[in-house]
Amino acid sequence: MNRISEVISKIEPLDAEAMRRARERQDQLTKPQGSLGVLEELSIKIAGITGKAVPEVGDKAIIVMAADHGVVEEGVSAYPREVTPQMVLNFAHGGAAINAIARHVGARVVVVDIGVARQIRNREFSTSSNNNVDYSSSESRAKSRDESRRSLSEASREARAENMSLVEKKVRFGTNNMAKGPAMSREEAIASIEVGIDIVEEEIKRGVTIIGTGDMGIGNTTPSSAILSVFSDLPVEAVVGKGTGITDDQLETKIRVIKEALHINRPDPGDPLDVLAKVGGLEIGGMAGCILGAAAHRIPVVIDGFISGAAALITSKIAPRSADYMIASHVSVEPGHKVIFEMLGLKPMLHMDMRLGEGTGAALGISLAEAATRVLAEMATFTEAGVSTQNL
Amino acid sequence: MNRISEVISKIEPLDAEAMRRARERQDQLTKPQGSLGVLEELSIKIAGITGKAVPEVGDKAIIVMAADHGVVEEGVSAYPREVTPQMVLNFAHGGAAINAIARHVGARVVVVDIGVARQIRNREFSTSSNNNVDYSSSESRAKSRDESRRSLSEASREARAENMSLVEKKVRFGTNNMAKGPAMSREEAIASIEVGIDIVEEEIKRGVTIIGTGDMGIGNTTPSSAILSVFSDLPVEAVVGKGTGITDDQLETKIRVIKEALHINRPDPGDPLDVLAKVGGLEIGGMAGCILGAAAHRIPVVIDGFISGAAALITSKIAPRSADYMIASHVSVEPGHKVIFEMLGLKPMLHMDMRLGEGTGAALGISLAEAATRVLAEMATFTEAGVSTQNL
Repeated sequence: MNRISEVISKIEPLDAEAMRRARERQDQLTKPQGSLGVLEELSIKIAGITGKAVPEVGDKAIIVMAADHGVVEEGVSAYPREVTPQMVLNFAHGGAAINAIARHVGARVVVVDIGVARQIRNREFSTSSNNNVDYSSSESRAKSRDESRRSLSEASREARAENMSLVEKKVRFGTNNMAKGPAMSREEAIASIEVGIDIVEEEIKRGVTIIGTGDMGIGNTTPSSAILSVFSDLPVEAVVGKGTGITDDQLETKIRVIKEALHINRPDPGDPLDVLAKVGGLEIGGMAGCILGAAAHRIPVVIDGFISGAAALITSKIAPRSADYMIASHVSVEPGHKVIFEMLGLKPMLHMDMRLGEGTGAALGISLAEAATRVLAEMATFTEAGVSTQNL
Repeated sequence: MNRISEVISKIEPLDAEAMRRARERQDQLTKPQGSLGVLEELSIKIAGITGKAVPEVGDKAIIVMAADHGVVEEGVSAYPREVTPQMVLNFAHGGAAINAIARHVGARVVVVDIGVARQIRNREFSTSSNNNVDYSSSESRAKSRDESRRSLSEASREARAENMSLVEKKVRFGTNNMAKGPAMSREEAIASIEVGIDIVEEEIKRGVTIIGTGDMGIGNTTPSSAILSVFSDLPVEAVVGKGTGITDDQLETKIRVIKEALHINRPDPGDPLDVLAKVGGLEIGGMAGCILGAAAHRIPVVIDGFISGAAALITSKIAPRSADYMIASHVSVEPGHKVIFEMLGLKPMLHMDMRLGEGTGAALGISLAEAATRVLAEMATFTEAGVSTQNL
C-alpha cells in the first residue's frame, strides 16, 4: 500500500486560478457566454486538471487492461473465456473496434495483459521481437487514406498495424471464481493497482497529455455489478444488465451468482481494496491505478463504459479527490452505468447505446476533450474580432 | 419551383442491398452483435445513403448559411443585428467556434452570405481578391501543432486562416419583420432553397462526401420556433426558448411576437414554401436546399441545432424521403429541438447543452459518422482474427 499511498498523497485539488482564467477567456470568446455548454465546462475542467489556463491536448493514449475472471465458469457470459486472449491478439494486429476508433481520433492504444488466463506468446504477434510491441507511424494513416487507388482491404490491413503497443504485466492468470471465495488476495489487488500506476507513469514519460480507460475481460460486467452493489447499497437486480448479450435465463444466473459472491465474501464497503480483492478483477484494479496515476500527475482521464465506471468508483473511494480528474464519455446500455455517474457527479456526453468496452467510448470522448481545448485556444475574442457584445 | 421539383424527383429510397451487406459485415466483426449501438446503425444508414456497402468518409464540409431577420427590431434577440456580418467576418478569419471545431474534425467551412443585411466588402478580408475566398492548406494545421516552440497565439493566428471559403449568394438584404407581414416573397423563399442546392452541387464537384448544416443569423430562433409551431400544431409557448440568452421579459416579447406573426400571416401548414416565406428565413431556406441537394446526390447530411432542425423539418415536408438522408448530431437546450427530432424520427448522439449553432454540433457529429464508417471498414471479422463466436 506504500506505493499507492504515496501516489494518493500527490493528488491535489484542481487549480482554481487556471480555471478562473480559462472561464474568463471563454467568456470573452466570440459566442454568447455558455453557448457551447459542456464543451466550455470541459475546457475549464481540463485547465483545472492541468494547471494551464489554455491547456493543449497533444499525445493521446487509450489504455486497455485485459484480464480473465474465474466466475465465468458459472455461466455468466455469452462468450467463452478464450475470447479474452484472442481479442488481445486482435488488438495487437489492429483489427478491433478500439483500434479503428483510436486511429480516427489520433490516439495510441496501449494493451496491458494484467491477468489474461493463458500465456500470450511473442510469436503470436506477426512483427514483434519483445513483449513491448510498438508500431508507431503517424504518417501511414494519412498516406493510406490519400492513396485511393489502393484497395480498401490493403489500406485497412496496413492501417491496422500502427499506433499499438502490448505490455506484459501479468499479476496472475485470471482471478478465482468469486462465487466460491475471494477473486484474488489483497496483495494481488494492490499489485494490479500498481501496474496501472506504472503504465500511466511510463506513458507520461512518452509525453501523453490525456488518457482513456479501456477494458477487455470476458465476464467482467459480473464483478462490476458486484462492486456497484456494494458501494451503492442497491439490490443486485437494480445494477445488473445483459452485458454483451446474455439471455434472460443467463441474467437470472448472473444475479444469483453475484448474490452468492457477496454473501460468501462479505466485502467491506468501507475498505475499497477489500471490495476489489473479493469481488473485483485485475483489469478493474489496473484501471483504478491508471486513474490514480493520472490524477497524481495532473493528466485528464476519460472514463469509458460500465467496467471503467466500476474502476472509477473504486478509485473515488480510495482517493475521493481523484473524481475531479475524471471525464465521462458515454452512457452505456448497462443499467448500473447511470448510477455510477450519479455517484461520481459526472455527466456523460455521448448517448449512443454502446456496450462494447475496450475504451471505444473513451476514445470518442478524448476527441471531444480535444475539441473543447481547441475552442478555448483558437477562437478569437470579441475585441480581436471586432464583434459587438450583448447590448443589454 | 421547377429546379426544386427536379431535385426532389431525384431523391431515391435508401439502398436496401447496401444496407443489408453493411449489416451482414457489422455482424461478422470482432465484437458482440449490436454492441457499438448507434455507431453500427449509423454506418448502415450511411451505406444506404451512399449505396456503398463499405462507405468511406473523405472530404467533409460544414455549410454555414448566414442571413438577417427583420423581426429583430421587435427586441427578440440578446444581440444587435450588426453581429451577423461581424460574425461572417470572424468566420472568414477563422476565429469562430465552428472554425476551431471544423479544423479539429478535418472539415472545410463554407460560409454563404445568403441574406446578410449589409454588404460585406472584399477588402474586409485580409487576403481575398474575390468573393469566393478559399484558403486551403491541409498541412498547416499539423505543422502548427507540431512546432511547439512557436507561441500559441502565433500558431492560432496561422491556423485560423485555412480551410475556409466565403461565398456571396445574397438573395436579399435580410427578411422583413414577420410580425408585420410576410418575411419574404414566395419567389425569394424558392431562391433561397435554390442557393442551397447550388452550394451543395458545387461542393460535390469538389469531392465532398458528407456535409453538415450550420447557421448564423441574429434572431433566427424566432422564425424557427414559428415554423415548428405551424408544423407541430403545438402552442408557441411549448416550442420557444431563450435562444442564445435573452431575459424572461424578452422571452415574453418573443412569444407575443411569434403569435402576432402567425396571426397576421396565417402560414399554411400544408404548403411548406408558404411557411418558409411568411415566417421563415433566408438561411433556413438555404439549409433546406442543402439537405435536398445532399439527398438527391446520395450525400449524408448531418443536422446541427434548433435552426438546422427547423430547416430539416421544412425539408421533410417538401420531400418526405429527404429525412432518410439526415443524421442528427446533438440535442440543444432549446426546448423545441426534442420535438423536431421526434417529428423527424431522428435520435441525437451528443447531449452537451450546446446552443450556439454555426454547425458546431454538426461538425462533432460528422466526426462520429466518420468513426462509424472506419469501424465498418477497418475492423477484422471473427474469421480473420481467429476469435470464437458466441457459444450459445
